[in-house]
Amino acid sequence: MSEPVRVAFLGLGVMGYPMAGHLAAHGHQVTVWNRTAAKATAWVAQHGGTAAATAREAATGAALVFLCVGNDDDVRSVVYGADGALAGMADGAILVDHTTASADLARELAAAAAKTGVAFLDAPVSGGQAGAQNGKLTIMVGGEAEAFARAKPVMDCYGRAVTLMGPAGAGQLTKMVNQICIAGLVQALAEGIAFAGKAGLDQKLVLDVISKGAAQSWQMENRGTTMVDDTFNFGFAVDWMRKDLSICLSEARRNGAKLPVTALVDQFYAQVQALGGGRWDTSSLIKPLG
Amino acid sequence: MSEPVRVAFLGLGVMGYPMAGHLAAHGHQVTVWNRTAAKATAWVAQHGGTAAATAREAATGAALVFLCVGNDDDVRSVVYGADGALAGMADGAILVDHTTASADLARELAAAAAKTGVAFLDAPVSGGQAGAQNGKLTIMVGGEAEAFARAKPVMDCYGRAVTLMGPAGAGQLTKMVNQICIAGLVQALAEGIAFAGKAGLDQKLVLDVISKGAAQSWQMENRGTTMVDDTFNFGFAVDWMRKDLSICLSEARRNGAKLPVTALVDQFYAQVQALGGGRWDTSSLIKPLG
Repeated sequence: MSEPVRVAFLGLGVMGYPMAGHLAAHGHQVTVWNRTAAKATAWVAQHGGTAAATAREAATGAALVFLCVGNDDDVRSVVYGADGALAGMADGAILVDHTTASADLARELAAAAAKTGVAFLDAPVSGGQAGAQNGKLTIMVGGEAEAFARAKPVMDCYGRAVTLMGPAGAGQLTKMVNQICIAGLVQALAEGIAFAGKAGLDQKLVLDVISKGAAQSWQMENRGTTMVDDTFNFGFAVDWMRKDLSICLSEARRNGAKLPVTALVDQFYAQVQALGGGRWDTSSLIKPLG
Repeated sequence: MSEPVRVAFLGLGVMGYPMAGHLAAHGHQVTVWNRTAAKATAWVAQHGGTAAATAREAATGAALVFLCVGNDDDVRSVVYGADGALAGMADGAILVDHTTASADLARELAAAAAKTGVAFLDAPVSGGQAGAQNGKLTIMVGGEAEAFARAKPVMDCYGRAVTLMGPAGAGQLTKMVNQICIAGLVQALAEGIAFAGKAGLDQKLVLDVISKGAAQSWQMENRGTTMVDDTFNFGFAVDWMRKDLSICLSEARRNGAKLPVTALVDQFYAQVQALGGGRWDTSSLIKPLG
């Protein structure tokens, strides 16, 4: 872990709130900002530190500025403009974006930050709300090695595996690979479990048996039973997964990758949304198969 | 493990040959039969026991008759007819089919066997050639509990997890769920790895990082690196996977299960076959994405 430094955390959602908390717990001087100010007030009441009125104010004087918001446009609104983070950041500071966003945005931000001597790291995370709370996120980072070396000890406050994947955008591209691998995997699991039901098998016994072999997956072990139980009020929401898959499919248009099953599963998630399941966990892909 | 008994093993392919070997190594009196007699001669030279000229001859006097052949028609040709296994089996003996075949065939064989007082278990395996060789197969069994209780201690010679899944056909149906879960999962992994390549990422580093989280799977851990290396001359052949998926898709027509991604992946395997990859490992799904 690092020497205590002055940091800012922008965006106190289900991920950012506990991540910023880990920074404070490790002794860093944390200034927070959130679009809805009440959350920042609550955070300071719990963790100490300071709440700022604008992203710029929070970023002023910080060696590292972290943000974790919703999508590309949210990131732009927090970073750019008179009240944006970049306006407050000093030469030599580092901007770290934990939002899952496009690789294009990462390259754009790296270029914009460089103009004022600020380094940029795209650093999307996986591990979900639980990973943020227990400080065990996987963090996939794109950017320059020197900035990564300075930021990593601070990210270790909430990261279990913090890895530099390549230049600006490489963190986002790695997160896309992660989501692509998950989308088709969850659909395959859903088809298998639904088939087991139609076949009259004891679905949980089937999962118990086949999870010992080549069909095993984290999703089977952690979402199989809840899929059988038709329970989806937890986990990673379908609306967010569709946002991520949209980024993957756009990037694939650009780099020429073929994603036939990923594209199809994105459509199945649209069916889940149509069933009212936008906030359900991604394992709700089994719903349209019922 | 069981008291030594007299058993027969019919079909000495890449799976049956080592499975029968484990029976001999555990002290059972094994009579083998194989369509190509030379393999049976070689097996006896290695393991002792007896080679029979016909399936009927091998089955005569055996308490348990195991078979492991190619497909439904192969099973019928070994079990039925004047030289078939059933003609030699005594009242009270048990016929155990380790072939991955249809659930309909399992029900048909159970009925045919019952006419002569023979019990039938459908018992497809997973774990591949390596699992057969080291005696650590997962065995999914359909049939009556009494026959299962008698056969299980003998199957434990080569099974790590031998589970009764339900009545005749339930073993085959469980194996189908296994293959359904694998098909879409491997395609998703292939799309992810191919995307990583098009995105200019270090594919092995990506796999190392994302295999710690929600995208993790046995396939990612055991086939990811070889997919990156474009190596497919091992493992479970595409031709056999297509046979298994054909069984899954037929059964789904009957029970009403929806298998959109499984059906699509079956078509991608047809593309791999068209590329000359019928004998390649199932992870060759990445080939048409190149």
